[in-house]
Amino acid sequence: MAADLDHLIKLLARLPGLGPRSARRAALFLIKRPEAVGEPLARAIGRAVENVKPCGTCGNLDTNDPCAICSSVKRDRSLICVVEGVADLWALERSATFGGLYHVLGGTLSALDGVGPDDLSIPKLVERARDVRVKEVILATNATVDGQTTAHYITDRLAGSGVEISGLAHGVPMGGELDFLDDGTLQTALKARKPL
Amino acid sequence: MAADLDHLIKLLARLPGLGPRSARRAALFLIKRPEAVGEPLARAIGRAVENVKPCGTCGNLDTNDPCAICSSVKRDRSLICVVEGVADLWALERSATFGGLYHVLGGTLSALDGVGPDDLSIPKLVERARDVRVKEVILATNATVDGQTTAHYITDRLAGSGVEISGLAHGVPMGGELDFLDDGTLQTALKARKPL
Repeated sequence: MAADLDHLIKLLARLPGLGPRSARRAALFLIKRPEAVGEPLARAIGRAVENVKPCGTCGNLDTNDPCAICSSVKRDRSLICVVEGVADLWALERSATFGGLYHVLGGTLSALDGVGPDDLSIPKLVERARDVRVKEVILATNATVDGQTTAHYITDRLAGSGVEISGLAHGVPMGGELDFLDDGTLQTALKARKPL
Repeated sequence: MAADLDHLIKLLARLPGLGPRSARRAALFLIKRPEAVGEPLARAIGRAVENVKPCGTCGNLDTNDPCAICSSVKRDRSLICVVEGVADLWALERSATFGGLYHVLGGTLSALDGVGPDDLSIPKLVERARDVRVKEVILATNATVDGQTTAHYITDRLAGSGVEISGLAHGVPMGGELDFLDDGTLQTALKARKPL
């Protein structure tokens, strides 16, 4: 195989979600349609890598700093929703139910991986929470051990700052079948049952 | 979301094997590691798109024309293995058992999709088979209806040319469990059974 092709396939295979086989298929796809796919994708990657940077305030990725959310006059500045990563922020934005600001941690605390509070943007969150306009911090870290540990730590750090601290509700996901849910989710959903 | 990012995600989602969700993950991955992944990938795509072209003889993709296989003095010029696509050629090369030349059809005959013999490189194959050095054409199209139809058509076209025409053996794949195989494969494997 040509060295250029081999190199391209190796780089494509490093993308999350692409194994060696799908990397080969993707490479063929790119080369067979140079004008339609290959060249536009090369340009789009180059432009995104050059222009898109983390927002200095919240950590969201955008071409502007502060980002479109932080600089929007329509967003509620009394609410900060704390997420692990930008993908979580995007998921919440797609749900179109949150009108406040975000704070992207950049991961979770992890003793195993040696990630401490200063490796995440926790000090900056504590600083942001001091702003008198901030009334509530919503901890939307993942419902995993690391995510919940991080949420507990942040709760401790923000104690006494006067802001309200909340977390996402746990329970049966919409469209979820009970038979496929784990015991923990079912227990939480039962305990937090609501009158209809 | 920033327009540059949105555009990048849309293009990534067009790659085979990447859905919207994995395209978002891939975009984040590219942007978070610009020097390690994003920029090298943009350059690799650009270079491959520019330099890699189909071989004028066999249709293999390479930076040279004729390709490394067609121009190699080590390959057996009496054997031509006919495959549907370059991915099939790569699969055979990985198996490292074939020392002849290839011929990439560029697809299969398909009445439904309006693909006729002249849309594939069948005329060129007929021409190549006229070379006195060619003794055998191995039809290695896929074991699908379209693949086998194409193989039959090529057999007809090459009839009377004096070259031997063969096909890949069918049977139980190595490591395959009988319980998971379809009836057709089992019937073929039984009929073509061999003394041990």
